[in-house]
Amino acid sequence: MTETPSDLKAYIDTLAENAQAAVSALGTSSGQARNDALCHAAAFIRTRSGEIQQANRKDVAAAEAHGLSAAMIDRLKLDDARIEAMAAGLEAIAALPDPLGAKLAEWDVPSGLSIARISTALGVIGIIYESRPNVTVDAGGLCIKSGNAAILRGGSDSAHSAALLGQAMRDGLSKAGLPEDGVQLVGTTDRGAVGHMLTAVGKIDVIVPRGGKSLVERIQAEARVPVFAHLEGICHSYVAAGADRQMAIDILVNAKMRRTGICGATETMLIDEAIAADMLGPITSALQEAGCEVRGCEKSRAIIDNLVPASEADWSCEYLDAILSVKVVKNTKEAIAHIKHYSSGHTESIITADSAAIQAFVTELDSAILMINASTQFADGGEFGMGAEIGIATGKLHARGPVGAAQLTSFKYVVTGNGQTRPL
Amino acid sequence: MTETPSDLKAYIDTLAENAQAAVSALGTSSGQARNDALCHAAAFIRTRSGEIQQANRKDVAAAEAHGLSAAMIDRLKLDDARIEAMAAGLEAIAALPDPLGAKLAEWDVPSGLSIARISTALGVIGIIYESRPNVTVDAGGLCIKSGNAAILRGGSDSAHSAALLGQAMRDGLSKAGLPEDGVQLVGTTDRGAVGHMLTAVGKIDVIVPRGGKSLVERIQAEARVPVFAHLEGICHSYVAAGADRQMAIDILVNAKMRRTGICGATETMLIDEAIAADMLGPITSALQEAGCEVRGCEKSRAIIDNLVPASEADWSCEYLDAILSVKVVKNTKEAIAHIKHYSSGHTESIITADSAAIQAFVTELDSAILMINASTQFADGGEFGMGAEIGIATGKLHARGPVGAAQLTSFKYVVTGNGQTRPL
Repeated sequence: MTETPSDLKAYIDTLAENAQAAVSALGTSSGQARNDALCHAAAFIRTRSGEIQQANRKDVAAAEAHGLSAAMIDRLKLDDARIEAMAAGLEAIAALPDPLGAKLAEWDVPSGLSIARISTALGVIGIIYESRPNVTVDAGGLCIKSGNAAILRGGSDSAHSAALLGQAMRDGLSKAGLPEDGVQLVGTTDRGAVGHMLTAVGKIDVIVPRGGKSLVERIQAEARVPVFAHLEGICHSYVAAGADRQMAIDILVNAKMRRTGICGATETMLIDEAIAADMLGPITSALQEAGCEVRGCEKSRAIIDNLVPASEADWSCEYLDAILSVKVVKNTKEAIAHIKHYSSGHTESIITADSAAIQAFVTELDSAILMINASTQFADGGEFGMGAEIGIATGKLHARGPVGAAQLTSFKYVVTGNGQTRPL
Repeated sequence: MTETPSDLKAYIDTLAENAQAAVSALGTSSGQARNDALCHAAAFIRTRSGEIQQANRKDVAAAEAHGLSAAMIDRLKLDDARIEAMAAGLEAIAALPDPLGAKLAEWDVPSGLSIARISTALGVIGIIYESRPNVTVDAGGLCIKSGNAAILRGGSDSAHSAALLGQAMRDGLSKAGLPEDGVQLVGTTDRGAVGHMLTAVGKIDVIVPRGGKSLVERIQAEARVPVFAHLEGICHSYVAAGADRQMAIDILVNAKMRRTGICGATETMLIDEAIAADMLGPITSALQEAGCEVRGCEKSRAIIDNLVPASEADWSCEYLDAILSVKVVKNTKEAIAHIKHYSSGHTESIITADSAAIQAFVTELDSAILMINASTQFADGGEFGMGAEIGIATGKLHARGPVGAAQLTSFKYVVTGNGQTRPL
């Protein structure tokens, strides 16, 4: 696992070739076979829970020895509950509808041809992530479900745990009669391997990074292979004139404080000046009582005197913490302009009963997810009914928003004729 | 038009910023306004036909002077009929359904949220093409229809014609109350401009090359911005056991000879050995009578003695000419293996009444278009009922097959609640 192949590029190319060969079989396999593979992998994980936890303890001890942060170590740790959650997650993916072979559209044309658009596997998917063992299972599982081959490159601190979990996925594939190279782990902790994955154009079809801003930033900068990712989630909740006061309080406290460290957490609240005198106090008090630091613009501080002054930098800051910036805006137009300027294109919510404001908000803004009277924390594949997600994408090509099994597909056209030739 | 800006990168960045600003308005404009722009542009082209032809004569004279090929000059030339075809093409695009604001999917989730996926403009599209004035109009028109902003960089030999046609598009936008920067021409023939377009990550959303293999090859190699393209069309027609003889003859002659220079033309015929003795002669005779050179594998030459010997290089060759390579295969499995190995992933056709062979062909192959009992020359946006196409894509991300107005869109999620907060 830690041995460095002498030629890293050749090593990654070999993994990619193995993966391409696997896709040929996986992409045309039955949904039943792919589901069987997922269930066999779940059984492996349950049966060998003790062994997996033993490997995980080695990783945790090493991580503690070279001083990984407490938060990182918490994400690395596996216990009975987390192991069961991984196994159950695979079974939940197995229970989803088959994303392959679906007739996405069908129509006839005047020449008499009948055209169908059929969903297909996307190909080889490279997943680059930090030391979170569960990503090995989630991402590998979604790739198996969608007939794609996964090349998984996890953080070096989770090497022992990931090796066994990768073995679970490969064992599942093999038991289902599918090529085990549908899931491959990069068997070196040399960081150069990532660089070769990012430039494997024509060999790896798409890269999905899972991790913090610095990881994603590096990947987006270096990648020549297309990337499904978001760099950060600077999400806004906009309380417009016509909002119900209690609803605004409940949504803001939830959107910010339910979990502050996720990308769908609200970072900035905008509020119309017409209602600020009435609603700003109750909303910020509720947030402060929940333990949130509230940083306000000048106008907001003229209304509420206990806010921390917000600076220009606050509007572009993904706190991922119990901090919220607040800005009073003249109207919906100014709110939309602020969001267009500062948003990372992830998720924005409007809270109001005013249908004209709602209409402008969802039409003029072009973030991946626009919410009406709901917490931005619903920006999640599970909450969208997709069962599981490999990440959330803010790009506009191919995948956008939560990326589940159905978003990991492409399509082909099947055109049926009865001897048609094309006139000159 | 031929003046080189001193800082090419800054020049392209400015065009991209203008384009982004235009998309903001275009992407949220009414379908009626975008259709009006197209019809105004069509009227401009008809009204100023004389002036356009005068500019075109300058381009043609210059092209002849520095020795452009006859084929290139033919593509460059505009006459009354071609001008009318461009104007009518814009009106045909206007008549297509609006690709923006369509509800692509809609569902409810257990939390009570209602989720809709709505089509949106993709953004800024860079189109790089050879000296074909009509591409300025086709590509610009499709971008207007889909609410995108086009940055058009045509071949330098068409500069005078393209300038006026670009003016037609901008005039149309302006008359419809839309930002004229929805269509911009790169106003320099300096080739460095293309390099800056290809690396304008985050400023240009996608590049569409239209031209020969060398142009596309260069663009795919250099681009950091995603590209919708196909490098070449090595299309196969496979005559399987169970084919109707006359249908096979008709389809092969059409697939190869209707137009030999298009990407959907068949380059290789595969035929099952069980029917080769019976059908190979009639098919190759018909092709030869139509003026086609037929190059055969050893087995085929053992059956028909007047074929030119095919070499290994023939199976990877996009002739774009009246030449066809022929290979006798044992069965459907060998045909599929040959296509997987040599195809460029564009279009393949099977000719047979055997449903098992058809099923294997359309399931196991993953080219953009798979045809059953029809000529590969139907691989075309117009024939697919898309009205017009900006090109055909063989990649698997986002667009695949003919790229029409609907493929030039992205989507966003609009999530409607009534106060939902997410449980812990």
